[in-house]
Parts: sequence; C-alpha cells; structure tokens
Amino acid sequence: MATATAGKGLEGIVAANSGICWIDGEAGVLSYRGIDIHELAEKSTFEETTYLLWNGILPTELALREFSSQLALARVLDQRIVDMLRGFPTSATPMEVLRTAVSALSFYDADERDNSHDANVRKAYNLTAQTAMIVAVYDRIRKGLEIVPPDRSLSHAANFLWMLNGVKPSETAARTLDVALVLHADHELNASTFAARVIAATLSDIHSAVTGAIGALKGPLHGGANEAVMKLLYLIDKAGADPVEYVKGMLAARQKISGFGHRVYKTEDPRATHLRKMSERLGKDAGQSKWYEMSRAIELYINADKKLNANVDFYSASTYATLGIDIDLYTPIFAISRISGWAAHVIEQLDDNRLIRPRAEYIGPAYPSTYIPIEERG
Amino acid sequence: MATATAGKGLEGIVAANSGICWIDGEAGVLSYRGIDIHELAEKSTFEETTYLLWNGILPTELALREFSSQLALARVLDQRIVDMLRGFPTSATPMEVLRTAVSALSFYDADERDNSHDANVRKAYNLTAQTAMIVAVYDRIRKGLEIVPPDRSLSHAANFLWMLNGVKPSETAARTLDVALVLHADHELNASTFAARVIAATLSDIHSAVTGAIGALKGPLHGGANEAVMKLLYLIDKAGADPVEYVKGMLAARQKISGFGHRVYKTEDPRATHLRKMSERLGKDAGQSKWYEMSRAIELYINADKKLNANVDFYSASTYATLGIDIDLYTPIFAISRISGWAAHVIEQLDDNRLIRPRAEYIGPAYPSTYIPIEERG
Repeated sequence: MATATAGKGLEGIVAANSGICWIDGEAGVLSYRGIDIHELAEKSTFEETTYLLWNGILPTELALREFSSQLALARVLDQRIVDMLRGFPTSATPMEVLRTAVSALSFYDADERDNSHDANVRKAYNLTAQTAMIVAVYDRIRKGLEIVPPDRSLSHAANFLWMLNGVKPSETAARTLDVALVLHADHELNASTFAARVIAATLSDIHSAVTGAIGALKGPLHGGANEAVMKLLYLIDKAGADPVEYVKGMLAARQKISGFGHRVYKTEDPRATHLRKMSERLGKDAGQSKWYEMSRAIELYINADKKLNANVDFYSASTYATLGIDIDLYTPIFAISRISGWAAHVIEQLDDNRLIRPRAEYIGPAYPSTYIPIEERG
Repeated sequence: MATATAGKGLEGIVAANSGICWIDGEAGVLSYRGIDIHELAEKSTFEETTYLLWNGILPTELALREFSSQLALARVLDQRIVDMLRGFPTSATPMEVLRTAVSALSFYDADERDNSHDANVRKAYNLTAQTAMIVAVYDRIRKGLEIVPPDRSLSHAANFLWMLNGVKPSETAARTLDVALVLHADHELNASTFAARVIAATLSDIHSAVTGAIGALKGPLHGGANEAVMKLLYLIDKAGADPVEYVKGMLAARQKISGFGHRVYKTEDPRATHLRKMSERLGKDAGQSKWYEMSRAIELYINADKKLNANVDFYSASTYATLGIDIDLYTPIFAISRISGWAAHVIEQLDDNRLIRPRAEYIGPAYPSTYIPIEERG
C-alpha cells in the first residue's frame, strides 16, 4: 500500500489548501485573509469579519451595509423549529439542542436540495442568523421565559444579547461580545472545521456539515474547554480557596487545567491577548473583577511553572461570566461565531472538491483469520 | 512550519491505527478483524458481525444469544422521538430526518453525560437498534400508515423489514438484507467513519459522532451513490432505452455514472461480488430480473470501456429495488448497517484518543495585509 504514516491526530499534516486563515504558531500570528487578528479585534465587527471570511476582501461601506442587512433579514426561525424546541426536555444541554435544531433547519430551507455555490452562500446567511437565534430562544424556553423577537436594527452580537436577556445590552457588553465573535470566527483546520470539510467533501449539504461541526465543537478538547475553565473558577470561588494553591493541588493530583496550551501555538494564543484585556476592562466597568483576577493569578502560575500559555478558551470564561452569561452557553456562543468560518470552509471545499478519505494503519488480527463455525468456538 | 503536504483528500495518508478493518485495495480484499468479507457474507449475520466488530472476536453461542437479545431489547424509541418525527414535514428526506432524530436521541439516553468505554458500548446498542427503528417509523409516518411495533423475536434485518412493511418478510428477503448489512457494516476510514472519529476525538459524545457520520454518508460521493444508481436505472426504464446506449450517451456528455470505481480498490470491490450474486438470485426468485439485467449490461460495458469496476453501491440499487424498498431509503439502510462500524471506530478512538487536527496549506492573500479603514476602500 502506498501510504504515508502521519503523526497521531494528523499533527503537522496538510489536509487542504485554504485561502481563509493563516496561522504562524511559532510567532503567535493569526490572520483572516491575510489581515492580522489584532487589527480585526480592534477595528472590525463580526459582520465585517464574516464578509471578509466569505468574500476574501474587506467590504466597501455600501457592501457592508447590504451584507449586514441581509444577515439581519435572515433572522427568521420557522415556527415549527420553535415548536420543536418547546418539545425538547429542559434537561437537554444547549449544545445537544443546537446540534439537533440546526439539523432540522434543512427541512425548511428553500435551498436544501441545491448544493451550488450561490445556494450555499444563501444558506450561510440563514445558518449564521438562525444559529444565534436557536441558542437564545432555547435558553428562554428552558427558563420558562417568553421568547424575544429579533431586532433587525441591532448588530449580530447585540441582537443575540437582546434575544437572550430581553434587555437591550449596554454598548460595552455588545462590543465585548462582538469582539469575542471576531476572535472566534475562524481558526483554519481546527477539529470542528475539519469535520465540516470531511462531511461537505462527500457532496453532502452545508446543514450536515455544520451539524457535524457543532458535534465536534461540543467536545472538551475543543469548544467545550471554555465551560471547563469556568467550572474550575466557580469551584475555587465556592471553596473560598486561593486559586494558585487550588491549581497546584490539581496538578499534584495529575488533573488537567483547561484553557492552556494549543496544538498550533508555541507562544501565546493571540486571541487570549485580547480576551485578557477585555475581561480586565469589563471587570473594572462592572465592579466585578473577581473572575479576571482569579484567572490572571492562575495564568501567571501556569506560565511560570508549566511554561504553558493561555489559549482562546481561558479568558473567554471570565469574560462571559462577567457578562452574566450562563456557563452552558459558552460553547454555543463559540458556535454562533465559528459558524462564519465553518460556512467559509464548506464553500471553499466545494469550490474545488475532493473526497477526504485517509487510510488506517491496521493493527488487528492477522489476515486471513479463519471463520470458525460457532459450535467449535471455545 | 513542520508540516508535510498530503495528497488532496488525504489520499494515501494514514490517519489512525485501527484493529477493526483491513483492506488490500490491490488484491481486492476486505476483512473485519482479519476475517475475509466473503466468509462473513456467506456464513455470518449482522448480529454476529457487529459482535465481531465491537469485540474483536467471534462470539460463542451463548455470547451471541446474549448479544442478539441485548440488541433486540434496545428496540425502544422514546415516545417524544416518535412525536418529533410526526412533527416533521413529510417533504423532509429520510437522511435529514435520521440525522436530526439521532441527534435528539441523546436527550433521552441515560448515559448521555458518560463518555466512558462501558457507557459508549451501552449507547452503541441503543443507537444500532434505534437507527433502524427511526428509518422504518418515519417511513410509515410520512406515508400515513400506522407505526408497527418492534418484534423482538426477529433478527435486526427481519425486524427492520417488519417495521417498514407491516408484513413478516420472507426468509429470502430477510437474509438478503442481512447479508447486505454484513457487507456494509464497516470499511475502515471511509469519509463518514473518519468524520465520526474526528468528532469523537474532541471528547464529544457518540451521538455527536454518529450524527456527523450520517451527514457525511448522505453525500452522493459516499452513501448517496446507491440512490443515484437506482435513479439512473429508473430513467433508462422509463425512456424504454437500451441501457448501454443510454450510458454511452451520458459518457459522451461527460456525465458521471455512479456506482463505479473506488478510492481504495484497484480490482473489483469484494462487496460488489456478493451484491451482484444476491441481486441476480433475488431477481430470479421474484420473477423480476429487470433491474439485475440492466445493471449487468451497464457493468460489462463500463468494465470494458472505462476499465472501472462496480463498487458496493452499484448492485445495492437493484437488490433493494427488487426487495421493493423505496429509493430514498437506500442510503438510510446503509446507515442502519454502518452504525455498527461507526460505533466500533468511535470506541476505538476514545480508548486511545488524540485530537485530530491537521493543518492547511495557506493560499490566500499575503500576511500582513493592511486593514484599510472603510472610508478608504475602493
């Protein structure tokens, strides 16, 4: 067999050509379409960043206005999806619900049977708007609250907070979430995006690809890590413990501290730099610096002792906590951002498609093993 | 970046160690746990094959009896899943429905939050039984027919046909489907199984992995191909055309003929050998050899003219058509078999896990590109 053995987990293996995201893990550089993430975090919005990811260039004022308005117009959730969400047990976690409801969206998408480039762009608008709505609507339903209708005059980030809380968000809150969405929008062939491309490459549809990606993001080694970070902070807080001592104890017991280290980055994850700043500022503004300070103490200790850097998940936790968001919505919020990257990658995959089908190194019983008749088996 | 460039679509790249399935594409060999697929197709059943895939060895009589009875006992579909299926529009395709309903199964699985080996084995029993039930139940619902309760005295294959048709299947029909399920049960790192492993490797759950796999299987370059084959046969039949002339015309117009060629096999797909035989025998028994004969004529022509061999999808089509199964259930039937392979691979992945996270070769705008202020964009 003419096969090449890759590192476990395909580490260091190039699995696709892509013009979307460039990462230099040695230098700690992340860029979308060649533009540095630091510039985008400071100057861009989720809408503009999504336009950039999908179109490869920054929009003109007119193009951005049209794009944002298309995205706002797509804030429509079929009543049957809402009814389905009402039928789910309130014990269902938001990620299970999101995975299921996004899968069901295809029933009602007019373009479901059209896998052309243009149809997938239309579906990408819908999926981006609907993913955020599903997260907010299900949270209202499970809490026994009334569903808040979308406000099309608001940005993607602000509308999500509005539909989630039923209160118009402060400018700081809306901008904080907006920047978090920019930072999470894409990250090359991370596991969920790669899953989406593997699925799309069978010429299946974008709903299948995004549903699979949500399933991958759910895992604690991927999007689920931000929830694990916050669970730890709550635990430390509840115990009234010193954060560094607590973490020392965990390390001594060989427990893993979520939110540190990254397969790709050897330096600090550039997204962590911004989330740290936001978490700090937000804490000061809100007079609630507890989560930031606890996080910072842990980070400094892990930096020094384990030579590990904080990743995107670490300061997402304190940022979302300070915004008053429930812990099991952190990964769904990752999804309502990463949907823009998933869509960009699915469309790029389909524009120059080949089935993604690697091989396995066989380590099982030798071939041919005999089929022993059942009465002779011991 | 210390990266190695793989062929497009990861062709020839080893992405995992696996003891489940061994394929020799040059020699046309497929084996599960070292046992040749020809032996299994002739002598085994879906239940025994699933035991083999999950446990690595053939069961004793007692073990097989217990295993089959466990699988039969798992034929339970929560009433809320049935209600959900009733709420779906009848225009929804069975694969969209299966993807959505399997995702929702996690809400009601007692082991949902337990990702241990033993819990995943329990979930694998449930998923295997429930996947077949969902396909049959939704088909009854969309046709306005009463739901047929499972019969736990029947085999997996026979119970599926019973729940689908409301009539006990003939021995020939049950055995034909049983062999088809054996043949489709696993195929190493095919796209859907690979998607399942990518998802599972984030330490997400088996429902996420199987949901993603169903989405991948749906694609016409994967499981969807058997439906494409049958659509062609129907088209030729309706036109009253000569199959070979029809296919010649398609090839002249540069159209693809589904059901031929395979990424891995350079010889005949060993599964096609059995499906051809079954399709022929079934046609004779049923006095309905039309689909077999049409298929055979096309196969001989494509063999000779294009040097391409029939794959697993090609004779699945005529086999299922002769069994009287609706065309849009062919891929779901693939799923109700492959679920056993997906489960085996997910559990194997988790037993020795590493995140599957490859890299991309960047082909986009040069870094750093400038963030031009919006008012200066042309």
